[in-house]
Parts: sequence; structure tokens; C-alpha cells
Amino acid sequence: MTNLENTIDRIKELMCEDTEAQLREELNSYHSADIADIFQQLSHEERLKCLTKIDEEKAADVIEYLPPQLQVEILGDIDESLASRLISKLPHDEAADVLGDMEDDDTETYLEKLPEKFSSEIRELLTYNEDTAGGIMTPLVLTVNYNLKVKDALDMIRTQAEEDNLELYYVYAVDKHKHLLGVVSLRTLLTSSVDAKISDIMVKDIVNVQVDDYQGHIADIFMKYQFNALPVVDLYNHLKGIVTWDDVKDIVEEETTDEIYTSSGIVTDLGDDDDDILTGSLSHSIKARTPWLFITLIGEFFAVWITNKYGATFSALPIIAAFMPLLVGLGGNIGTQSITLMVRGMSTGQITLHNGWSHIGRETITGLCIGLIFGLCVSFATWGWQCNAELGFVIGLAMALNMTIAAVIGTCTPLVLKKLNIDPAVASGPVITTAIDIIGLAVYLTLVTWYLITV
Amino acid sequence: MTNLENTIDRIKELMCEDTEAQLREELNSYHSADIADIFQQLSHEERLKCLTKIDEEKAADVIEYLPPQLQVEILGDIDESLASRLISKLPHDEAADVLGDMEDDDTETYLEKLPEKFSSEIRELLTYNEDTAGGIMTPLVLTVNYNLKVKDALDMIRTQAEEDNLELYYVYAVDKHKHLLGVVSLRTLLTSSVDAKISDIMVKDIVNVQVDDYQGHIADIFMKYQFNALPVVDLYNHLKGIVTWDDVKDIVEEETTDEIYTSSGIVTDLGDDDDDILTGSLSHSIKARTPWLFITLIGEFFAVWITNKYGATFSALPIIAAFMPLLVGLGGNIGTQSITLMVRGMSTGQITLHNGWSHIGRETITGLCIGLIFGLCVSFATWGWQCNAELGFVIGLAMALNMTIAAVIGTCTPLVLKKLNIDPAVASGPVITTAIDIIGLAVYLTLVTWYLITV
Repeated sequence: MTNLENTIDRIKELMCEDTEAQLREELNSYHSADIADIFQQLSHEERLKCLTKIDEEKAADVIEYLPPQLQVEILGDIDESLASRLISKLPHDEAADVLGDMEDDDTETYLEKLPEKFSSEIRELLTYNEDTAGGIMTPLVLTVNYNLKVKDALDMIRTQAEEDNLELYYVYAVDKHKHLLGVVSLRTLLTSSVDAKISDIMVKDIVNVQVDDYQGHIADIFMKYQFNALPVVDLYNHLKGIVTWDDVKDIVEEETTDEIYTSSGIVTDLGDDDDDILTGSLSHSIKARTPWLFITLIGEFFAVWITNKYGATFSALPIIAAFMPLLVGLGGNIGTQSITLMVRGMSTGQITLHNGWSHIGRETITGLCIGLIFGLCVSFATWGWQCNAELGFVIGLAMALNMTIAAVIGTCTPLVLKKLNIDPAVASGPVITTAIDIIGLAVYLTLVTWYLITV
Repeated sequence: MTNLENTIDRIKELMCEDTEAQLREELNSYHSADIADIFQQLSHEERLKCLTKIDEEKAADVIEYLPPQLQVEILGDIDESLASRLISKLPHDEAADVLGDMEDDDTETYLEKLPEKFSSEIRELLTYNEDTAGGIMTPLVLTVNYNLKVKDALDMIRTQAEEDNLELYYVYAVDKHKHLLGVVSLRTLLTSSVDAKISDIMVKDIVNVQVDDYQGHIADIFMKYQFNALPVVDLYNHLKGIVTWDDVKDIVEEETTDEIYTSSGIVTDLGDDDDDILTGSLSHSIKARTPWLFITLIGEFFAVWITNKYGATFSALPIIAAFMPLLVGLGGNIGTQSITLMVRGMSTGQITLHNGWSHIGRETITGLCIGLIFGLCVSFATWGWQCNAELGFVIGLAMALNMTIAAVIGTCTPLVLKKLNIDPAVASGPVITTAIDIIGLAVYLTLVTWYLITV
């Protein structure tokens, strides 16, 4: 798919010309992921028209690649029996996600129309919180009894994989009560002697997750151990399902979006999907954005109140006021850089509470160096512009101090928050930049007032 | 590994007490990924001491889980023959990365010590740019001739997988010149009749990447199609290797860090690793952070120059100056929120040039609503504080205008940059917030001056 826009234009043309056979052929020749991309650029009616032209197997595949909102929208608008056929062709975890996103009545309607075994498996999945392993996993796992021989296991796998449309990652060894005992990679299975027993070739130190582990934890485990799939067990070590890397990919994307949104002071835990902030109702978007802005407002009003005490200074030398945005702006920027480096470093695991001190030291020196460079620049620029060396010196000194303090605050706050078990991403939000503003202004105004008195 | 800190303390204790056997047993009982985590918290000497206690197979595994800098550091400090043994146990792509990160002389020394076949395969990998598919892929792929029967293919796979220590993802069907013709999943292979021909069961529409495709493109393809592995081909469709999801995980993490750094005005394309900004030399860190700060400095000096023209206003009514940080701060914050939403939406593919207009409309309305709410708050607060309804009205109006304009600029700029093929993440950098500062101040000062004249 080299050029999505051209493809979309061609599809639209084919729809206008009503050349049904050609449209059908064209659509079915694409990969499902490409069709999903195309669907996202089409209008509601165009999408429905195209969907009916695609073979059912492929249509279910396309649904799988679509974002949640669109899945629900499309399934709600097509013929009910087609919709249930498509849902029954989805992998269990996807089907549960789609049904979970629908209105309760609709969920029930579809669950009743689905094949009984599938439907009861989905019902179980729907009982788990959707942000936990239980809500993410697929319950179909390739299992073999730990007592089997390799050749019998291979035969079993053949039948199981065919019946249940299973993806093959690892084979899990269980006892007759489905307790998880070991894991065998397909490579080991294929290269072992056919008469070896599964219990002899399986790995017994299994990294697993619990059904009620939260998605952030699951993503961390995946990233750390770099498996393709992780088994999910309940409290009694019964194997309940597996989480695969394509589930984790979605989690990681979501967590990154959360981290980035939080850093900009956008509230992400309103109980809905992050996507709603971008595409949901206007009131939702306003609710997500105003809380931190309000806190900034209060903080900045405090800055106004402090600054107002220096009214006499502004009357005496108005240029003092003109320099405020410069001081505040650069302090905020270097502070934001420090916060970003710390928050990201913590989220990738490079910065820990263990090595945090050395980073504070490093950032302080960096802040001091950059502060001195910029302080000198501002000194000379002001001196040259206003022909006033003392004023240049005072403003340059304020700049250097301000930038150093901002870097130190920006570095320490995320660490302190982490120590207090608060999400450090909050630090880069408006609160800390407001704090940096207030401190920066206080330092600056104290310095210039002292200058005005002494000169 | 429930508690890393406790484990580290225990390991340190075991080292002090010089109970070698116990230390050896303890270390070898951990998963390699856990040992890698522990290593990152140990001192240089402690790490070397521990490494020699770990079985060689496992030690190579631990090296694989370590960050690049640490890999090079450790291998450079241990006995040369042990180092080459460990390197020869790494997967090809990891070995090439490690050797590529060393000084040229060291690379050559090790290459000469490695087994000849391995060494020549690594030499080929080292010829590719490390940010392209060629530099990321592993050259060992499970291939079968497309003419084979399933049962012969399974036999071949058994031998190949055992000899080359291959991970099994998919089996690639090639002709005798190694042209890539199709792909067969292990599931299909195991569930097909043993007498079927590979060419009859293979999928012929193969999504692949070229050896010189850049890593961002590879990550996009992976995320879109959700495969476990992608074949890498050269210009003539010869199969050169595969890229697997654990390679992509690193790319995605790196790209996310780039996006986040760039958004905070930290320069990421200095030719080195992003990690260097956090842990490299001080001068490197300063070089990464100053460029955008300098541009901010120039922009903000322009703001000072404009503001200074309103000196008479400040002399007449100093509180006007005191309100500047409030105006600038809130404008900057809402603008940053808008930029963040747009840049992230573009990077996850939810916002495209196609649907960009509707987002501009939406953000403008959101900005206007939030602007009005905050404008009213500020009006009443100022009125109450200063007992001056007109002043309250003017400042509230400036606030509302400022926030709306900031939201619109924050939304449009990333789209315009994207249209111009410039990385939209740059927009959230200091440049746009400085532009928002300048425009906000100009609007505010014009309004208050007009108010002072009319009152």
C-alpha cells in the first residue's frame, strides 16, 4: 500500500460508478490491515457499502484492525445476523472487547445469537476488568498434558490448532486440573526426540501474570522479558489464557499516550478511553483539559499578587516589567526539558530511585552551565541595547539563577513524586512550570529592587 | 522478582562475605532479564565479579538484555577470550550491534577471534546502516524450498532449528536462488496433510521490508499488520533476514523518546544515541538542550522589545505588568495541550491531513469555550480584588482571546508542518510557545492601552 490517498480515490470512484464486481475484486485483493486504514477515511455509508462486498472471513479480519469506536459503530449498523457471524469469527479477546464496548442490551442480544460455547467463553471474559490480564487475554491456549510423549503431543497440537483456530506461540504443559506446570517452545518440541516426555523437556521456571494484574504491569513484564506471549493464571495457578504481544502493543501505545497527555496537563483518568478527548463530546474534552488549567490559574494569580507588590519598581523603571516574559519563558523551557528527561528516563527504567542522586547532580551542573551561557548573552544584549551595564548584569544574573533553579526543580520533583508513589508525569504538568514561574519572578524582582535601591 | 532492591542488597552481601558457591547458585537461579536489571544497579567491579559466576550460556543471555553502553563496557573489561565466547553466543543481530558500538580496532580484534562463518555473517550485517532493516535484522531465517512436501519440510526444519539455534516464527518458502516466494505459519504446517506441497499451502501475498528501509517505517509496518516477524529482502527479492517484534519494541521505545524529547525542545539528531543526553558527556547534553533555548531567547527578546514600548502603560498602571505572567502562562498551557493532542494523534494515526480540518474546528470551539470560562473567572477575580469592573473586563477579554488564539495556533501548526513534511513534534517545542507568548502579549497590551486611553 504505497499511497493510501490514491487507493481511497479509486475505491470512491468504483463506488460511484456502481461497478460492483470490480469493487468486490479490488477490495478483496487488499490486506485486511490496509482495508481498515481505508475504512477510517471513508464516510459512514461508504464503509457499510464496502463491507458487504468483502468476503466474510476477511471482513471479520478488517473489523479486528479497526479502532474500538468504529467497530461498534459498524456492527451496530449492519444486519444483525451478519454482525453476529462476524463477531463469532473474531478472536475471543477481540470479540469480548467489541461486545464490552456496546450498550448492555446489544451485548446480550448478540451473546444469545452466538454459538453456545463461544458465547459462554465470552461471558467469562466479560466478567474481568478490561484493563486487567483477564480482560486482555485470549482464553484459547495450546495445552498438553505434562505426561505425554512428544509424538503424542504433536498429534494433539495438530488437532487442537485446527479445531480452535489457534495461534501457535508456546505450548503450555498442564496437569489434568489445568494447573500450569511448564512451557515448551515449538522449537524444542520439534527438535526433541519423539519419545521424550513433555515433563522432561519443559521449562519449569515460568514467568506468568495473574488474571487481575493491571495492564501497565503486564506491559512492563513483556518489555522486560521479551516473550511473544505470557500465560495468565488465577490464584490457584490454573491456566486461564494467554496475553500476546499484539495485545501489549495496544497497551504500550495507550500508556505512552497517557504519559504524554499527563505531561501536558490533560487529565486521562476520567474513566473513558483517551480517544474520547480527541474525538468524543466537547464537554468531555473540556473536562479533561480544565482541571490543571484551573490550578495554573490559581498559581499564576499568586504570581500576579507577588508581582503587584513591586508596582513602584515598574513605575520607576518600566523595562523591568518588559523583561518578565523573557525570564519566565526561558526558566519554564529549561525546567520542562529537565522534567522531560527525568520522567522519560524513569518510564524507560534508566533512572531509578537508586541512581537518582547522580542525575540530580548532573542536571544541576548542566543547568548552571546553560544558565551561565544564557545569563552572559542576556547581560551583553541588555547592556548593548539599554547602554546600562548594571542593568545588564542584574538581568543576566537573574537569568542564570532562574535557569539553574528551574533545572534543579525540574529534576528533583519527578524523583520526589516517585518516592511518594505519585505518577511523576504529573510533574511536567502545569503545576511545576507555574511553581518555576513564581520562584523565578520572586528571584528576579528581589534582585532588581535591590539594584534600584543601591543605584 | 518482586523486590529488586532486596535482591540487590542480598547479592551485595553475598559478595562481601565472599561465599562464592552461594553467590553462584543465587545468580544462576534468576532469569537473565532479572540479572540484567540487577547489573544496572551494581558498580562496575561488582558487575564483573558477578558475571564470572554465571554460566556462560546465561551470561550471554544477560549481556543481550543489557543496554548498549553497558554491553560494550563489560565486554571490554573481561578477559578477551571469554568476551569472544560470549559474543559468539549472542544472536547475530545483537552481536553485530555490540561489535558496531565498539571502537573500530576492538571490533576487528573480536571479529578475528570469532568462528569464521559467524564472523563473516556479522561482517555483512555491519555493512548496513544500523537504523535500517539490514542493521536490525537477524540473518538466520528458517527457509524451505517451495517444492518440498510438508513432511520433508518438517524434517528440514528440525535439523535447521537445532543447528542454528533458530527462533521459530514463520517458515519462509524460497527457490534455489533464495528468492522469497511465500510464507507458511507453523500452524498451517502442522495442520496440513504431510503430503501437501509447500507451494500449495504458502501465503503468496507477503508483506516485507527492504534491507535499506528505515526503522521508523519498519515499526509502522509492524504496528499496522501486527505480525511477529517480517522478512527482509534486497532489491532482487532475495531473502536476507527477518526482523522480529523484540527488535521493533526497541525501535518504538526509541521513537517515542525522540517524539517526547523533540516536543520539549531537546535536539535528538546529534548523531548519537538518545541515551547520551541522559548519561553521556556534559557537553553533549548542553549541545542537545541549547539550540531551541537560543531560539526561544531571540523570540522572547522580541517580546521584551514589544512590551517595552508600553512602558508608559506600566508607569501609569503597574498592575497591568503584574498580569503579564498570568496571561502568558495560561496561553502557553492551553496551546501546549492542543499541540500535544495533535502531535500524538498524528503519531498514532488518528489525525491525518484528511480529517485535520475537522480537528481544527473542534479545537477552536474547545479553545473558545475554555477561554470564555477562564476569561469570566479572571474578570470577576480582578474586579473583586481591584474593585475595578472595567479593568476586570479588559483583562478577562484578553484572557479569553489569548486562550482561543493559543488553542488555534497549537492545533494548526502541527498540521501545517506535517503538510510541509517537517516533524510536527517540533511544533510543541519552545518555538510555538514563544510565538503564543508574543501574540498573547501583543493582544493584551493593545487591549489595556486602549482601555487606558478610553477611561
